[in-house]
Parts: sequence; C-alpha cells; structure tokens
Amino acid sequence: MWIFGALGGLATTLVVGSKAIGKGKASGQGLLTETELCKGLPLIPIKKLVFGGHELRRGSLLQSAREIHEQTGTIPYPLLNALKADLDKTSKEIKAGTAINAGRSIQKLAERVPKKPLSMKSELARLQRDIKSFMQRNRLTRCVCVNLTSTEPQLKLTSTHQSAEALSKAIAGDKRSTLRPSTLYALAAAKLGLPFIHFTPSNAAFIPAVIEEFEAQAVPYMGCDGKTGETLVKSALAPMFKYRNLKVLTWQGYNILGDRDGVILADAENKRAKLESKDGLLSKILGYPLHTHVGIDYVPSLNDLKTAWDFIHFQGFLDYKMSLQFTWQGCDAILAAPIVLDMIRLAELAQRRGESGPMRHLSCFFKRPQGVDDHDLHRQWHLLTEYVKQARS
Amino acid sequence: MWIFGALGGLATTLVVGSKAIGKGKASGQGLLTETELCKGLPLIPIKKLVFGGHELRRGSLLQSAREIHEQTGTIPYPLLNALKADLDKTSKEIKAGTAINAGRSIQKLAERVPKKPLSMKSELARLQRDIKSFMQRNRLTRCVCVNLTSTEPQLKLTSTHQSAEALSKAIAGDKRSTLRPSTLYALAAAKLGLPFIHFTPSNAAFIPAVIEEFEAQAVPYMGCDGKTGETLVKSALAPMFKYRNLKVLTWQGYNILGDRDGVILADAENKRAKLESKDGLLSKILGYPLHTHVGIDYVPSLNDLKTAWDFIHFQGFLDYKMSLQFTWQGCDAILAAPIVLDMIRLAELAQRRGESGPMRHLSCFFKRPQGVDDHDLHRQWHLLTEYVKQARS
Amino acid sequence: MWIFGALGGLATTLVVGSKAIGKGKASGQGLLTETELCKGLPLIPIKKLVFGGHELRRGSLLQSAREIHEQTGTIPYPLLNALKADLDKTSKEIKAGTAINAGRSIQKLAERVPKKPLSMKSELARLQRDIKSFMQRNRLTRCVCVNLTSTEPQLKLTSTHQSAEALSKAIAGDKRSTLRPSTLYALAAAKLGLPFIHFTPSNAAFIPAVIEEFEAQAVPYMGCDGKTGETLVKSALAPMFKYRNLKVLTWQGYNILGDRDGVILADAENKRAKLESKDGLLSKILGYPLHTHVGIDYVPSLNDLKTAWDFIHFQGFLDYKMSLQFTWQGCDAILAAPIVLDMIRLAELAQRRGESGPMRHLSCFFKRPQGVDDHDLHRQWHLLTEYVKQARS
Amino acid sequence: MWIFGALGGLATTLVVGSKAIGKGKASGQGLLTETELCKGLPLIPIKKLVFGGHELRRGSLLQSAREIHEQTGTIPYPLLNALKADLDKTSKEIKAGTAINAGRSIQKLAERVPKKPLSMKSELARLQRDIKSFMQRNRLTRCVCVNLTSTEPQLKLTSTHQSAEALSKAIAGDKRSTLRPSTLYALAAAKLGLPFIHFTPSNAAFIPAVIEEFEAQAVPYMGCDGKTGETLVKSALAPMFKYRNLKVLTWQGYNILGDRDGVILADAENKRAKLESKDGLLSKILGYPLHTHVGIDYVPSLNDLKTAWDFIHFQGFLDYKMSLQFTWQGCDAILAAPIVLDMIRLAELAQRRGESGPMRHLSCFFKRPQGVDDHDLHRQWHLLTEYVKQARS
Repeated sequence: MWIFGALGGLATTLVVGSKAIGKGKASGQGLLTETELCKGLPLIPIKKLVFGGHELRRGSLLQSAREIHEQTGTIPYPLLNALKADLDKTSKEIKAGTAINAGRSIQKLAERVPKKPLSMKSELARLQRDIKSFMQRNRLTRCVCVNLTSTEPQLKLTSTHQSAEALSKAIAGDKRSTLRPSTLYALAAAKLGLPFIHFTPSNAAFIPAVIEEFEAQAVPYMGCDGKTGETLVKSALAPMFKYRNLKVLTWQGYNILGDRDGVILADAENKRAKLESKDGLLSKILGYPLHTHVGIDYVPSLNDLKTAWDFIHFQGFLDYKMSLQFTWQGCDAILAAPIVLDMIRLAELAQRRGESGPMRHLSCFFKRPQGVDDHDLHRQWHLLTEYVKQARS
Repeated sequence: MWIFGALGGLATTLVVGSKAIGKGKASGQGLLTETELCKGLPLIPIKKLVFGGHELRRGSLLQSAREIHEQTGTIPYPLLNALKADLDKTSKEIKAGTAINAGRSIQKLAERVPKKPLSMKSELARLQRDIKSFMQRNRLTRCVCVNLTSTEPQLKLTSTHQSAEALSKAIAGDKRSTLRPSTLYALAAAKLGLPFIHFTPSNAAFIPAVIEEFEAQAVPYMGCDGKTGETLVKSALAPMFKYRNLKVLTWQGYNILGDRDGVILADAENKRAKLESKDGLLSKILGYPLHTHVGIDYVPSLNDLKTAWDFIHFQGFLDYKMSLQFTWQGCDAILAAPIVLDMIRLAELAQRRGESGPMRHLSCFFKRPQGVDDHDLHRQWHLLTEYVKQARS
Repeated sequence: MWIFGALGGLATTLVVGSKAIGKGKASGQGLLTETELCKGLPLIPIKKLVFGGHELRRGSLLQSAREIHEQTGTIPYPLLNALKADLDKTSKEIKAGTAINAGRSIQKLAERVPKKPLSMKSELARLQRDIKSFMQRNRLTRCVCVNLTSTEPQLKLTSTHQSAEALSKAIAGDKRSTLRPSTLYALAAAKLGLPFIHFTPSNAAFIPAVIEEFEAQAVPYMGCDGKTGETLVKSALAPMFKYRNLKVLTWQGYNILGDRDGVILADAENKRAKLESKDGLLSKILGYPLHTHVGIDYVPSLNDLKTAWDFIHFQGFLDYKMSLQFTWQGCDAILAAPIVLDMIRLAELAQRRGESGPMRHLSCFFKRPQGVDDHDLHRQWHLLTEYVKQARS
Repeated sequence: MWIFGALGGLATTLVVGSKAIGKGKASGQGLLTETELCKGLPLIPIKKLVFGGHELRRGSLLQSAREIHEQTGTIPYPLLNALKADLDKTSKEIKAGTAINAGRSIQKLAERVPKKPLSMKSELARLQRDIKSFMQRNRLTRCVCVNLTSTEPQLKLTSTHQSAEALSKAIAGDKRSTLRPSTLYALAAAKLGLPFIHFTPSNAAFIPAVIEEFEAQAVPYMGCDGKTGETLVKSALAPMFKYRNLKVLTWQGYNILGDRDGVILADAENKRAKLESKDGLLSKILGYPLHTHVGIDYVPSLNDLKTAWDFIHFQGFLDYKMSLQFTWQGCDAILAAPIVLDMIRLAELAQRRGESGPMRHLSCFFKRPQGVDDHDLHRQWHLLTEYVKQARS
C-alpha cells in the first residue's frame, strides 16, 4: 500500500501495528477484518502488506515511532527494538511529497520537497513514477493508496474542477492555485488505476474532475474524513433521541488535542474544512435543524490524546428539558490506524472482485461518506454487514 | 386504561400529560405515536383515553401533581389549575391496591388497603371486580392494564410458579408467600382478557403460570422494566464498540436518584431485582464477558431527577486503553410517561388487530423484553419500524 | 439602592428575592450577611431596602419575573402573586437609561431612552437627577449604586481617561466616542457621593478619571466583574495544585449560556471584555505562565442556566500527566443576586463607618478586584473575615 | 528511611523517584520540598536518602518497577535500565514483614513471612532488629519510618489499647487478635525512638497505647491516611460553598481503581476503614450535616490510575438547586510518592530540631490528621507555611 503522509502519527502507528501483528507481537484488537464478521472473506494477510509513501517532513519511521512512545506511550518500548529493521526498510520507501498550494501551515512543515520547484505536470508525473517504481521493486500487482496528510485549507471550487478535461488544462498551464496536494495525490492514484482511500477532510481530492478519472479507470475509492472519535459517538447516539421523539435543542461539542494535527487545525483556514465535516450530520440523522457547535482547540500538552466534551440539551414530555454530556478520551492514531488497515484490505478485495466506484459499504468509517447520505452509524454498519455477507458467498 | 400504582410520579405525569395533550395544552413531544413513524396507524386518539387504577397510598392525582410541581417543576403550574376537574374525576376511579407479601419497604407505604385482610382468592376477585366495574361505568369495550408499581423484592421461583394449575392451588390455599402483588395484578388482567404492560423490574408478574394464563386468553402482553435512562444510553452506545472491535474492559454505571423510587431501591432486597435487569445486556450486545457494575444510590435532594455517571474503559489497537464517560441527567417520569402512553395505544391496536402473545415490536422500550434476546437498541428499533410498516398496510 | 440595568434577570432576581425575604417568604440561603459570620454587624435590614434604577428596555419587574419563572423556574410561581404590588411599585422607580456609545448589541435592545438624544452633559445631569429625586421621594439618606448592565465593548483608553479634568472637557465637548454608559453611571454615583459597586466586566467605569472622582468624594467603591461561576471554582481549585507542586500544563474552560447575557457575549467585541477578566487569574495564583483558554458560547436553550466544562491537565512526580475536569451547572442570577445584596449592605455599612476607597474586603466577589492583586479565593476570604472581625469590635 | 510495605506500588515509585532525582534523571515536580516554599530550610538532600523496609510479598523493586511500567507507564522505560543497580541494592535491604492478624485479604498475599510463626513479642523484637541492623550497616544516625502497607480491617478498640502497659501485657501473653501489623510497626518505630509517618487509614497504629510510647520517647509522628486524590479535591472545594452560603445538600463520591489496593478495598472489612477516613471531613468543613456517600469499587483494568466522580448538589438563593460534578483521573502512587518524600525530609528535620509529638504542620497531607480538627485544605496549608517560616528563621 502507498501512504500519502507516510511519517505522520497515524501512518507510523499503522505501519508499526501492521508489522507487529505480522510478527505475532501484537493482537488484532481494533481490526474488524480480524473478527468473526470477516471470517471467510479472502482478504490479503496483514503480514503480506508492503508499505511506501510520500511525505513532506524529514525523519524516519523509527524516529517518529520513538517520539510517539515518549509522548503518549501508545507504541510500547519493546516494539521499537523488535521492529527496527522493518521500520528502517520501510523508511527507504518514503519519497518527497508535494506542497504545491498546500497553505501556509503545511508549507511551514515541508522539509522534504524537490529542490527546485517542478511544474504541476512534472510533479504529477513524479508522484506516479514513485508509486510505480515502488510496485515494481516490490513486485506488487495491486496497491491501495491512502491519503493521511494533514487537513488542507478549503479549496474554492470553480468550473475548472468540474471536468477532467478542464483540470488537465489547468495542470498543463501550471495554474498552481487551482488545486491542492490532495488533488495531485488522488489524480496520481486514479491515473494509475489504483484504489484510493481519502481519510482526511480536505475537499480538494474528491472534486468532480478527479471522480471522473476514477470512474473512467473503473477503480474503487472512498472517503472522506475518517470518523474516529467525537463524531463516531455522535452518530451512534443521535438515533437514540429520534427513537424516543426527544427533541435535541442543542448539541455542543468541544474537541481539544495537541500534536501536528492540533497545530494545523489551530489555523483557522484549515479548521474550517474540518468543522464542515463534523457539524452537518446531526440534522441529517435527526431530521430537523438544531443548535449545534463544534469547537477544536489546540492543547499541546495532550499530544495525540484527543479529548472531547459534548453537551446535549434535549426536550421530552411536557417540553421538559434534560441533558446528556459525555467526555471522550481517545488516541486518534490508535483509533484511526486499524480502520485504515481494514479499509486497505477491503479495498484490495474490492478491486480483486472487479468492483468500482464509491465503496458505500465503508460509509461507517467516514464523516462525509461518498455516495451515502445516511449518517446513522447503525444503518451504515448494516451496509457493511450486508456487503460482507454477499462477498462471502 | 387501568394503572397499577395509579398515584406514583410516573402515573401522575402520564395522566396529567394525556389530559393536557387531549385539551391542546401540551405538545406531543416524547411520543412516538405522534411522529411521522406512526402516521396512518389507526391508533386510539389520546383524548379518548379514560384512566383508573389501583393504588396503595392515600391522596389524589391533584395532590401528587402539586408535589411534583414543587419538587422538580416538570408539571408546570398552569396545568394544575387547568386540569383540576379532570384530575379530580380520575382520582375517583382509583381503588385500594393489594400489599400481600409486597416486602417491608412497600408495605410501609401501604395506607389504602382493605380494612380487614382478605384471602388471596378474594383479593384477586376484588381486583378484577374493580377493573370490570370501571369498564362498565365508562362504557369501555377495551382496556389496557399497566403495572407501574414500585420494584418488589425478588420472588424465589419454585414449582408452584411453573403452571397455572399449581398457582391456582396456592391461591386457593392462601399461601401468601408464594406470590407478590405484581402476580395478582397480572393475573387479574389475564383472567379478564386484557392486554398487560409490565413496566417494572419485579420478577413476580411474568412467571410461567401467569404467562400460561395470558396465552390461554390469547391476549397481547409485554415487559419488563422500562428502559428510560442509563440503560437506554448503554444499549445505544454499546454496539459502537462492537462496530470498531474496541474491547470494552469495564463499564461502571452509577445511578443516583431520590423520590419513592429511590427510597425503595435503597432497600437491598428491592435493589437486587433492579440491578439484574440493568446489568445483563452489555455482554449480550458485545458478545463477551466484561467487568461491569451498576450502582443505585438514594439521594433525596434529587427527587425524580435521576443522574447517572458511566465510565467505560476500552482497549483498541496495540491494546491501548482509552475511555468514554457520560453523565445522564433526566427526569424518570418525564422519560417513562410517553413510552407508556405509546405502548397503551399500540397494545390497544394489537388487541383490535387480534394479535396475542409477547409484543416483540415493543422490545426497544424494555430492559428485559419478553421473547426478544437482542438488546441492541438499533435492532430493537428495527423490529418496531417493521411492525408499523406491516400494520399500516 | 439604585440599580443600573434594573430589569435584567439579575436585577429582577435581586429585587424579588429581597422583597420575598423581607416578607418572610424566602430563606436567606446564599446570603453571607445572614450567616454566623456577620452576626453582630450593624447591617441595614433587608426589608428596609428600597429599589430604583435605570434601564434601557421597556417592561416591568413583574413581566421580567414571569419570564424568568417560565424559562428556568428559579422564581417560584407563588412569589409572582405574593409580590405583585411590591414589584409594581418598584417598577415605577425605573427610569430611562443611557445608550450613548454602548455598542451595536446593546443599542439594539435600547427601547427606553430619551426621545431626542441629549448631549452627554445633559445625560449625566439627568441620571443624577433621577437618583436624587428617588432618594428624596423615598426619604433616603444613603443610597448604594450598583452597575448590573450588560457587558459593553472594551473602551480604548487614551489620555482623556487619565484625569477628571480631561474627562470633564470631553463631556463638555460632547465627544460621544470617548466613553460608555458605564462611565456615565459611575460618574453620576461619584458626583452624588454614593457608594458604587461595579458588577460587570466593562472597563469603562473604573478609568483613572472616574476613580479620581470617587477618591475626591471619599466614597467607598468596588468592582469589577462578579465572580459567580466557573471563575469562582477556578480560584478555589487552583491553589490546590500549588500546594502539591503539581504543574498545571493546561486549563481549558468552556462556558455555554443563553439569555440576553449570552446574546450580547456572542458579539465578539463584547466577549473580549469578558474573557480578559476570566483568563488572567490562573497564572497569578500559580506563579507561572500556562496554556489557558476560556470560551463562551451562546446556547439559547439554556437560558440563564450557565454550564461550564473545565479540563485541567497537570503534571506530577516523574513528570506524569493527569487530569481533573469539572462541569458546573448554575443559574447566574441566582448565584449573583445574593452577593450583590451582601455587597449593598456592606457598602452601606462602610459609608456609615466613614470608609472610602476600594473595598478590598469584597475582593472575593470579583474577577478583577480593585486594589487587590491576589486571586486566591481563600486569601480573599481571609480579607473579608478579618474586616468583619474588626468592624464588629 | 524505613518503609513498611516496601514493594508496593507507592514504595516502588518513591524509591525509583528518589534515586532518579538523586542522579539528575528526573525533575522534582510534585515535591514541595523542592519549591520556593522550602528554600532555605536545612533539609536532607534527596540523594543522601537510604532505603530499606519490611514487606510481605516476594519479588524485587526492579520487578515491581517493571510491572508498573507495563501497567501504567508512570515509570518510564529508560529509568528501569538506569537504576537497575540501585534498585537491586535497595531490594537487599527488604526483610520479611509481619502478617499477624492482618485479615484474610492481606494474609492471602503474604509470601514472605518467617517460616515458623513467631510469638508477637519475638516478632516485635525481630522488626526492631531489622531496622537497627539496617541503620548500622548503612551508618545512619537518623531514620524515618513510614507505613505504606495496605489498608487493614478495622481493629475494634478495647481497654487493652488504652495504655502502653495493657498493650505490653497483651503482647507478652501473645493475644494475637488484639492488634494488627500496623500496631507492631508503629511500636517498633516508637521503641527505637524513630519518627513515624502513618500514611494508611488503618486504625491500629495510632491507638492510645502506641501514642503513649511515642510521647514517652519524645519522637515526632504524624498520620493518618494520605490525602492524594478525591479527598484532596473535596477539602479544596468545600470551603467555596461556605464562602457563598451555598448549602451543600448532597456530596456523592465514587472512586474506582485497580491494583492490589483495589483488590484489598474490594473486601468489605478493609473498605470500611477507608471510608470512615474519607467521609467525615465535609460536615466538619461546612459546619452542618449533609447527605454524603463515598463508594470505592475495584476496576482491574484501571490499575493504579484511580478515577473518581463526585456529584455535588447545592442550594442557593431562593432555595434553587444547582450542581457541580468533577472527574479526577490520577495515578495514586505518583500523587502519594512526593508527599511521602516531603514528609520524610520534614520529619527528619523535625527530629533534628528536637521536636516531638504530632507534626501538625503536615496536616494538609492527611485525611485524618493527628492533633488537627480542621479539614479545610487552605487553613491546613497555612499551618505548613507558618511552620516553614518559623523553621527557616
């Protein structure tokens, strides 16, 4: 598999976890593809997975894993030793990413980019070359691409983004402000005919022009914005209020987190993209407009241990008001890594089965699932179980 | 409809609410039978409902409503005036309940009982007579019975409880320790061929001998233990952990509440019955044993504003531990009254449609639903929507 | 006493409460001046207090009290009837306030202002006249003024605000952008030689020019920004971390509230004033800089039932990180009214005792106490108990 | 210093921390004796401290430290390597403890006891011999003893416990049910003239007979039951309600924890001792009786990461009810170790300064401080600062 954003906390946890599971040094906890549900599905074994990727920052997977161990302890010390060789080998498969029009916050972090700036066309070609040579070197016939880069500022959509042809022209004309790195990453995957998982909220990947390319290549794809924490709980809890005709008056959500993710979301222009993803689903589940608020604040001391407080004010019989509040304390990378791994395996299977288009059965993993307008977690789960039933038979 | 426990907070809220809705003085918030879901179902209109019941304590509905207004404000002051006549009229339909073998906590509250103790056989006959004369007086052809009495101490089941015949003999022999008031109430309903909703956790109502009677009369029935607060949230949230293969290590739940309910649950023998209802569903939803605890403590200052804190400790990828905690602050009567009202209307419909046996489509309203072993709230909800779809056509 | 902002929720609760206590219809709960602490102090009896004030909105105390009853139930229904005559009488003592340069949010609410705009000089004279005629009409020899108006936008301080003389000139020249209503209210009190309690965060009242006037008149005064909720808890809890050398890394505070207060604080320019008050005290108590954040969001469904969630991340032995979080659910007016009443009585006493300048012994009631730089609640409390001891002897 | 319970989580953290600080491998965070407050006090340097102790379980400090690292990560991995030699050396100074009449839960854990049971008299002599030989071997002139053993079941006090003479007779007569291990540990210290810190809630240590011995030897001593978590927060917060005449109606506290401490407190007879310590202080601080509850439940998945939820229901102006709730998430050993270390140094100083009797200035560290009836944390802190001021001069 190929990871855009290959040295981030999530990517590092993903690679470390996969290698550890492959060597029998970690359990499959957190992985759906290792449960009863997926028994009998002809999935690729975890230990056969090979990793490479693009990345903007310098460093290695081992360094990144060490940093994580020190900050949150989520990667245990013994794994650092046991996996040294594997991590060093994978680190060699990490190539320079692209930072074209990535916005000030991300560009500030970009240390590993081509020395002299390339034209967009050359960048796109280079990205494709990197992936192809990775596949050849490792003798891979299939490769799933996953976008795990930081949230980019919203891209303002124009007619240029509406067709593959118009976008092609803009790239040929090197109009650098018309797209973001996510656009190039998605395009690279599409043009190579590789499945693509868009795990971030950035809106620049699944623009109509790119979707057109995926459809033309008949490739399966899915996104966007992984649902791992507060929003996951929201989509599990909100239906309960509907089941009882309890009117939700207010749903306030406050997220605090540290880490690079926190730094980048502290930038208002990147935060906006994230918030749009998080805020819309309640009125869709409940069927009426309500007062909602989603805050994200940067709290460096938390590192990746994201904490969220939600306050839900609701009205019942005789219009009496009551409340529910919850505090979620989870590690983002630990929650996201296994579902990325699950999706890689399921996307690989989908391609092998000749499927294409949005993988609707993966909607339960996303805040804004492509091709699915239902945000009720339980009904999304139903889509997955139905798919598995059918894929097994 | 006929209410066992007709002056409790829940019954009072139910009657006040029904009368207020009937007169257009309250919205239908909290009622499923007033939502889109039930549109087109030929349900009995709320304003046509007539109420009577059995009760152990003295007093009137107006007094009880006033007390509730002062304690929690859930019944607004203006309704006290507007509904005075209705409440006084309904209060006249309240007859002395039975306290035979009800346990010390409940017996302490029993002020309204026959002056000289009757034999069990005579008590049972008296209860039936009360209901029949209520129906005649009000010219009712159908009547749904609901048990809203306080939680009784667990009844130890023996062979006497296994068949209608054995139970009949015990009653004839006046063996007063072999049953509880709930047994008599359920039997009275069954023998009259009336639908019965068992809303409390008491295990003495749905013993095999009583079920046999309901089946013989081909009457619809359902219970037991209404799911209104912490357990409702539990059954909505627990599936989420399964969807992500997050292993729940611990689920601690602490409930605090005041009121008569709180007093009676402070008595260890009554509490046990309640806790069995609340504690079992997690391992059934999750599919594995886990460390759980449910506490209930009496906090007089809260009155009926039940507060619950749940702490959920779970393990994800790389066996990392994370947590979710929630605080639920709800008024029990406000949460329970509308679902009792919904069930009365749906039970009346079921009888009219010639249905009998456990009303499985009402399982989402109960902690221990008769005839349904699935505790996943979302799948229980599915049973209801399927039923409505079919009943509508 | 004279209240600027006489129809707000706080003022209404204050007047209703005082009248109710005066008539023996409410307990003195919440009042320090009714506890053992103040036994023996020659305080003015509550029933002797007479109220009047300035206000921008139309309406009456009875209407405002009714609205509060319906929204939060904090004023019980029976009091509305019992106090009708008193409230009507007091409502007659409410005069048009001033909205000169009050900022857009407040000006939007201003319905009760002089028909044709007066010059600043005339406004100031009018305000003084209103208070004097109130005192004469009610034969009062002393009158404490309290500012309970909504938070104004920050006033940018210039040399005009540094001396009474400069300010006088600005007023004479009708330079309307150089001051806010709070400046005029404070000046009116100062010029009349009346004690002044500044309960709001607005920075325009205690500018050097106004302080000069208070000192010239030898009047006691105190402020600003009443400490009633989250900040109160903060100043009680923060010392604990110091006592144990637990390093507070982060203190995030999120406040949600409805009501007019919420509406006005939703306006960024008014919120800024509030936040400055709330955010500074932690580093002063702890003695080192730390990561803090205070959010205030408008949640209409809460009305005056302010809810706050604070998350405190701290580091202990071996630099291990731990956390404390709290949720505060209080009614702002209920928390503020008794301390305003306490301060009125203590200010009246202070003037009677011939004291002048900042009433430092009242520092425990304020977020930014005049003349006291210590924000440790416990040491502020010590100032009060020492004062009382001395005043009693 | 000499530790009773030398291999527990607290003792291990204490020794590891002291050694790490001594070698410059850890900061002094959490230690009051390393802050501005104690600057100028002639305290013994941390690196000069030598440790030994009694213990019932087998194992070594290194094993115990490893276990802690794996369970909670509070002891970082690198320290395990860096301190190996120190820990091994200290482990050799750990001798068999005594389990005489320790109660079933503790006796179950007792692996390291004399092979054939000794008489109480011989046990006492053996304990003293162990400490004396430790002092000689390490050439120590002073030694502070600290009791960190698990909570014992309550000892029922009789006349035997009222005088040193009566207790002596009971020991001579080998009446094994008249005392607990804590009694023998405290007596051993007293008879050797060594300062004694009683950090656990066990009531068997500070019985009058033992106190008599301490006073006879003119030794400083203090206890009992370290205040490190929920109770600490309680004693910091409760005064706030007094300062505002907010009547606390209810204070419910629920503690959940794992580890040996949790196992032993799960035993009802040991829990009772703990609860008495935790529950009494509120009414003392507030000055009136109130509804309180303290629960402790065993949650194995938490290990030493104790979590507590407190719900405080209080009444303000117009008798309106409001609430405050907090969740405390701390590691017990991390919170306790530095204050034990602080007290060792301060006790050593006290003995050097010729002080004797209860060290009242340490009351802020205890749930039931000897010789101090004031539970207000802030006033207890004042006692400490006053002592330090005086000791410095």
